[in-house]
Amino acid sequence: MLDKAWGGRFREETDKFFEEFTESVSFDKILAFAEIKASLVYGKALLKAGILTREEYFLIEKGLLEIEKEIKEGCFVFKVEQEDVHMNLEKALFERIGDIAYKLHTGRSRNEQVVTDLRLYLMDEGEKLKILLLNFIETLITKAEAYMDVVMPGFTHLQHAQPVLFSHWISAYAEGSRLHFERLLDWEKRLKLSPLGSSAFAGCGFPLDRTFMAKELGFSAPHPHSVYAVSSRDFSAEFLFILTLIMLDLSRLSEELILWMTPEFAFIDLPDRFCSGSSIMPQKKNPDSAELIRGKGAIVLGNLFQLLTLIKNLPLSYNRDLQEDKPPLFQGIVTTQASLKMATLLIEGLKVNQKRIESFLKEGYLLATELADYLVTKGLPFREAHHLTGKIVRFAEERGKKLEELSLAEFQSFSPLITEEIYTWLTIEHSLKRREILGGTGREAVKSYLNSLREYILKWKK
Amino acid sequence: MLDKAWGGRFREETDKFFEEFTESVSFDKILAFAEIKASLVYGKALLKAGILTREEYFLIEKGLLEIEKEIKEGCFVFKVEQEDVHMNLEKALFERIGDIAYKLHTGRSRNEQVVTDLRLYLMDEGEKLKILLLNFIETLITKAEAYMDVVMPGFTHLQHAQPVLFSHWISAYAEGSRLHFERLLDWEKRLKLSPLGSSAFAGCGFPLDRTFMAKELGFSAPHPHSVYAVSSRDFSAEFLFILTLIMLDLSRLSEELILWMTPEFAFIDLPDRFCSGSSIMPQKKNPDSAELIRGKGAIVLGNLFQLLTLIKNLPLSYNRDLQEDKPPLFQGIVTTQASLKMATLLIEGLKVNQKRIESFLKEGYLLATELADYLVTKGLPFREAHHLTGKIVRFAEERGKKLEELSLAEFQSFSPLITEEIYTWLTIEHSLKRREILGGTGREAVKSYLNSLREYILKWKK
Amino acid sequence: MLDKAWGGRFREETDKFFEEFTESVSFDKILAFAEIKASLVYGKALLKAGILTREEYFLIEKGLLEIEKEIKEGCFVFKVEQEDVHMNLEKALFERIGDIAYKLHTGRSRNEQVVTDLRLYLMDEGEKLKILLLNFIETLITKAEAYMDVVMPGFTHLQHAQPVLFSHWISAYAEGSRLHFERLLDWEKRLKLSPLGSSAFAGCGFPLDRTFMAKELGFSAPHPHSVYAVSSRDFSAEFLFILTLIMLDLSRLSEELILWMTPEFAFIDLPDRFCSGSSIMPQKKNPDSAELIRGKGAIVLGNLFQLLTLIKNLPLSYNRDLQEDKPPLFQGIVTTQASLKMATLLIEGLKVNQKRIESFLKEGYLLATELADYLVTKGLPFREAHHLTGKIVRFAEERGKKLEELSLAEFQSFSPLITEEIYTWLTIEHSLKRREILGGTGREAVKSYLNSLREYILKWKK
Amino acid sequence: MLDKAWGGRFREETDKFFEEFTESVSFDKILAFAEIKASLVYGKALLKAGILTREEYFLIEKGLLEIEKEIKEGCFVFKVEQEDVHMNLEKALFERIGDIAYKLHTGRSRNEQVVTDLRLYLMDEGEKLKILLLNFIETLITKAEAYMDVVMPGFTHLQHAQPVLFSHWISAYAEGSRLHFERLLDWEKRLKLSPLGSSAFAGCGFPLDRTFMAKELGFSAPHPHSVYAVSSRDFSAEFLFILTLIMLDLSRLSEELILWMTPEFAFIDLPDRFCSGSSIMPQKKNPDSAELIRGKGAIVLGNLFQLLTLIKNLPLSYNRDLQEDKPPLFQGIVTTQASLKMATLLIEGLKVNQKRIESFLKEGYLLATELADYLVTKGLPFREAHHLTGKIVRFAEERGKKLEELSLAEFQSFSPLITEEIYTWLTIEHSLKRREILGGTGREAVKSYLNSLREYILKWKK
Repeated sequence: MLDKAWGGRFREETDKFFEEFTESVSFDKILAFAEIKASLVYGKALLKAGILTREEYFLIEKGLLEIEKEIKEGCFVFKVEQEDVHMNLEKALFERIGDIAYKLHTGRSRNEQVVTDLRLYLMDEGEKLKILLLNFIETLITKAEAYMDVVMPGFTHLQHAQPVLFSHWISAYAEGSRLHFERLLDWEKRLKLSPLGSSAFAGCGFPLDRTFMAKELGFSAPHPHSVYAVSSRDFSAEFLFILTLIMLDLSRLSEELILWMTPEFAFIDLPDRFCSGSSIMPQKKNPDSAELIRGKGAIVLGNLFQLLTLIKNLPLSYNRDLQEDKPPLFQGIVTTQASLKMATLLIEGLKVNQKRIESFLKEGYLLATELADYLVTKGLPFREAHHLTGKIVRFAEERGKKLEELSLAEFQSFSPLITEEIYTWLTIEHSLKRREILGGTGREAVKSYLNSLREYILKWKK
Repeated sequence: MLDKAWGGRFREETDKFFEEFTESVSFDKILAFAEIKASLVYGKALLKAGILTREEYFLIEKGLLEIEKEIKEGCFVFKVEQEDVHMNLEKALFERIGDIAYKLHTGRSRNEQVVTDLRLYLMDEGEKLKILLLNFIETLITKAEAYMDVVMPGFTHLQHAQPVLFSHWISAYAEGSRLHFERLLDWEKRLKLSPLGSSAFAGCGFPLDRTFMAKELGFSAPHPHSVYAVSSRDFSAEFLFILTLIMLDLSRLSEELILWMTPEFAFIDLPDRFCSGSSIMPQKKNPDSAELIRGKGAIVLGNLFQLLTLIKNLPLSYNRDLQEDKPPLFQGIVTTQASLKMATLLIEGLKVNQKRIESFLKEGYLLATELADYLVTKGLPFREAHHLTGKIVRFAEERGKKLEELSLAEFQSFSPLITEEIYTWLTIEHSLKRREILGGTGREAVKSYLNSLREYILKWKK
Repeated sequence: MLDKAWGGRFREETDKFFEEFTESVSFDKILAFAEIKASLVYGKALLKAGILTREEYFLIEKGLLEIEKEIKEGCFVFKVEQEDVHMNLEKALFERIGDIAYKLHTGRSRNEQVVTDLRLYLMDEGEKLKILLLNFIETLITKAEAYMDVVMPGFTHLQHAQPVLFSHWISAYAEGSRLHFERLLDWEKRLKLSPLGSSAFAGCGFPLDRTFMAKELGFSAPHPHSVYAVSSRDFSAEFLFILTLIMLDLSRLSEELILWMTPEFAFIDLPDRFCSGSSIMPQKKNPDSAELIRGKGAIVLGNLFQLLTLIKNLPLSYNRDLQEDKPPLFQGIVTTQASLKMATLLIEGLKVNQKRIESFLKEGYLLATELADYLVTKGLPFREAHHLTGKIVRFAEERGKKLEELSLAEFQSFSPLITEEIYTWLTIEHSLKRREILGGTGREAVKSYLNSLREYILKWKK
Repeated sequence: MLDKAWGGRFREETDKFFEEFTESVSFDKILAFAEIKASLVYGKALLKAGILTREEYFLIEKGLLEIEKEIKEGCFVFKVEQEDVHMNLEKALFERIGDIAYKLHTGRSRNEQVVTDLRLYLMDEGEKLKILLLNFIETLITKAEAYMDVVMPGFTHLQHAQPVLFSHWISAYAEGSRLHFERLLDWEKRLKLSPLGSSAFAGCGFPLDRTFMAKELGFSAPHPHSVYAVSSRDFSAEFLFILTLIMLDLSRLSEELILWMTPEFAFIDLPDRFCSGSSIMPQKKNPDSAELIRGKGAIVLGNLFQLLTLIKNLPLSYNRDLQEDKPPLFQGIVTTQASLKMATLLIEGLKVNQKRIESFLKEGYLLATELADYLVTKGLPFREAHHLTGKIVRFAEERGKKLEELSLAEFQSFSPLITEEIYTWLTIEHSLKRREILGGTGREAVKSYLNSLREYILKWKK
């Protein structure tokens, strides 16, 4: 039993299958750098508190840095018998520097170590994610600016509704990403609370300087409650939730890209380098990347629910169930980061088939709202104007005509309010110009939105 | 077809079953007050833009206020044939003031109305929730202060771990609630973006003052993107997520209350008024309220999942699927508010069986960490001290003794480092005193935490 | 306290808020008929066991039947103070027949009552669902038969892949429904186990004839384990799972209907009576019914999740959490039944735009597989044939030609294996004829499939 | 582009990041044996259809068996550039036998291959699971039989309710497992439908004998619908659902083991070899294995939801999203199998602390139901008997007496119906004897249940 750090009171060797069943090092080894970082600072605090001598501290530091180097170089071997990342590193340090290694664990518990490591790890992953989001937004802005002259039928219920700038439509995803970015900023406030010094849950029995440790590690403050600090996974859950929101927006974008790539729509083309073919049908070019992003949305959504369900009903403080917090969190992170990157590449590479899109502008009575609005300006209450327009649309449809192809006489047979002026209203450009409202699809409004968004991301990219 | 606001181009009466299948008024009528509030402001904006005359506006205002009164008095009848809350109110206004009513819908779409209403509604519900959270925190503080002298065995893995103040343990839930409260504050920043003026998705075709409307309604600004404004439910999802986090913490508290109420634990007693009996077993007193809170956690978690799954894969902008965002959101809100209130009552009413709890302090070698820490102060590296203590515990256990019942000779047979001093260390009070670290379970540390938390909530309760 | 059935040992009036918080009668009253049915049989068993006299039994029977009648007529008032359906009926019986009413509860517990009621209720709902599934299948067969001559581009990755009969494509949903129907038949075997006689969980203390009660109620046998019988909700979970599978298939069908209704596809038209318009855009005709079915899939999926999450971690036997099993179950049932009915109406009403669909058959190199297969028959290994065809497709595409428009010389410039024969292969009809394989899209294969499916449902509809 | 099987029509090299993003071979290589098995049978069918010559078939067979051997020996290298298991094996065969390899793909599509492989794989995993379930049941029976003399307080609401045999209580999990086993048998009927011959979705263009292929592979019949066969994942979802039900029952068992291991309960002891210690608290012995099983329930539940959410809204037939069906399915399988094995070991190893458990039998008025039932036999209606008993319990409680410690006079002060006889009723043995009802906790009833269950599993273990 000597081999287990906690083996003193045990009378029986650990079962092999149990060892495999309970190990976490196969996935928590990803936390090794965070563990080392936190151990160095913990060691410094022990030094400050007089629990380590200067010599002991330097020995520990040297040992840990050596181990870090080995891990980086890929020659460190993590062992399942050592359960988790914490025990693997503890053992490795002992093998290098002997008994002194064990002084590092004075007053320290894995319960606090694992949440400290996780928080440090998430600080890094959060930064990566923020950059990926900014790049995604920037790519969307650039694409939107490049296609400022493309007008497309905007959809509600996947039916043609009103004309809209392609740039306006696509930049909706940029706006969503901006909000998710803001969520990350808020989440960081709660992430940056340092558990170090919470020990198993009751607080450390040695007078360590928690504020010092927090600052050294880049936290903004010590976590104010030792029990909640080791019991809760609210900070991972909030992060996974933001990842899920990002993936949901990406799933919507992917759905649109897939639709727009159908021969029926043919609104866009995606580069061959991001598409696959079929093993049986030689003509196929499939938007696999978009489909996979969409599919991966289900994975991340499920990851969130794994974590949330895991937490339900657990008494305080630490329970071993919490070990299972990591696989969903890590899968969610890897999947979202890859999907964001893929989506950015797709946006960058997509080509808009302006001609094709614009061929649809003439169909489908996209300007019916304009006609109704026109009638309103002539004094008709909107609901009546709407109703009358409905009738005119039906009339035109039955004759196979577009609205603007109706004669003035035909218009006037519905309402004497309609004059020659109507033909000006029934143009795409007029409809856009009428929507130069803040946040609307008018050309100036869209440019102004894109400009301010670009400023926003530039501020953060620095 | 005249009866439907959108009936102009339709050639067939709406199917009755379809009408039932698609109606939402049975649940979205809860938005009626928000709808009226937003309509009044929209009307003002139309007035400012010269689309309504002053007389028309006042007529509309009068009509809407009458309707509001009727709803408050419970004498307004919502009709399924009018689909949703928007059409019901539009129709009702028409019945009161005739054609002018329809002018209110100039440039306005249900797509923006529903998200505006939802946001206004969530502002109110968010406020209620904040107050419930503050009350819950306050009750926890008060209870914690009342039982400052109770020491209990703290648990990890539901095994006795170290002594901890009951007040420290229970206040973990206060700390969690504080964090959720902070989340609500952050969420509000994203909630308070006004969709009004987004129209169907392309922006309003009439030059309304979006900033004016936003301010009038208590929003901080107009939503900057008309397409995202009507397409996204990120603001409801974030709220439901916070509700879920709250419920998960409550499920953990409930689990503990239920455990503590078992005859085996008997740590606490809950008042009869919050318990039920059994229909068959006359002696039963069941902690039903705690069980139900715990169970309702599954409901709210599922509500979040419903909303998130709903959104996945939807193309922009509005799709009718989004109508189904409301039942889970509303169920989540009602359930969480009631559960928070119930939990607050339970905390308020619970009585701690100090004697019973303290009887456990003597068992289970709760002070083993103290012994190990003591050895550390004598120069033993922690892991060795831990190992040695494990052996001493086993030795004591085999002899049916508590640690403090071992003789000095027995102690010294394990290590000559141990002196008489050890008996001071092996007391609960000493163990607590050693944990006067920030956030720890020392009496002063806990008092200080509770004080600062009380200050926090007082700041917000004003 | 007298008012509560279990009030004997309680010292305090039940709290009003607690009463509201814990009541279930607002939703479990739907089980009233099942409760009465089971009570009648339970009474008979008490009579058989000599616990009730014949007169007592008849009095109870008379009372229960009167109550049943009142409920049917809508004049029975369920009261929240009476907690649940069981206590409401118990009290109502007492009010009608006095003390004798209480004899009915000899050896009986609400724990067994509620699962007995649920199982009886699900027997009925299962039957309804089976009929709805059979109708849906029948409608799909009828529609498939009506459009046997329509060939459409079959999709993979939402790209055109190979020609397929519309009837074959759409009948995939019938095949799915057949499998779900089979699942219901299997589920019934586990549903039809009678909990009656399990009492609180330990088995009834009076020698009642469990087999008699089971048979009388239409169960196939008594549940063999009294603890599992009252603890488990496996039977509801399995049912909700089947509902979820049904909803997922309907969500896929809905997605296709919505796609096919876009102006870009325009493959089908849905009747006006199943569509809605827009409150702002007068030309709109939206496939709301399909969108809502799709959206409701998220609701039912979430209901399943609610129930499963609820069960997790609960110790045996009954816990009050289980009360929350009902809202998700009931919502899942109502939603699925309505959605199935709506989907059946949509299939019945949909019109296929054959011309429009067939216009796409000529584009997109749908017959590329045929060319590759042809080359295989000439001795080329498939992968090479596939690769060569890919090149020919690219060649044709660059010249704006369809495959069948290439000259023989052009073909032969790629491979001398190609002869005049190829033009026969490059027809839709030839491609269909080659797929007269069991389960394939050949006309005879599809007819044969539809015939055998019709036979299958006729067998069950009797 | 030559390197991709589908590269013919592509003009651009596949992007490296895209390749990584879309690859599945890192996880679907687990299907390699199934792929080879299915390929051999597909080859035979091509031979029967005259598409392969005998020599070609033997060459293919030889090549595939060589590859299979290499994989078994661990020396086969799967490559990400070859996307998935199908393409890796296709390429490997080509490298061994040249062009003939490509003939194997005549009329075959990855769409059908992947579902065929999955179904074959699930046949094997289903068998493994069935054996694990039978072993688990057998272990429960053996443990139940070993402790037939232990009586414990049965719980409802985690409160003491009525005495119950430990053997009865614990065998509830055996009954649940039996039902899950039955579910697997039913699921197999739907699993054993062979997709081979469905091709991409339209059916194979060559006249292969689908029934022959199905039988050779151990399927019961060909899948009757080529489109549904490649589009649906109902068979995996149903399997994952059964896994989830198993995990939920295991989570409940784990919860009980954890509770029973607390010092407060101390009902059982788990062997040291299945427990862990603490890194800081030397006295700890934690039931980690049970906690992890409980936690892993959340993982599998989330896996089910990942798969179900993935499927929602997908149009027919194959979409690349479906590639993401495998990670949750595989994770669910591995996790459930390991958890079942761990749970079986825990049951096998657990020791019951009979003395401790029985000490609780005397407390808590466990026999109150007996008193009420006794009063019923004296003619009191049950509800009144219940109420009266409640009062007697309160009376006894206030005097700190157990029920059986009340004097006859005291009893009779509540009801003259009570005679000396009552003391016989107020014994555990009498209470058990009264529950010799089918499925109840009487000793004979439990033995009989265990015997019949043992017969059941013996039938299946052969």
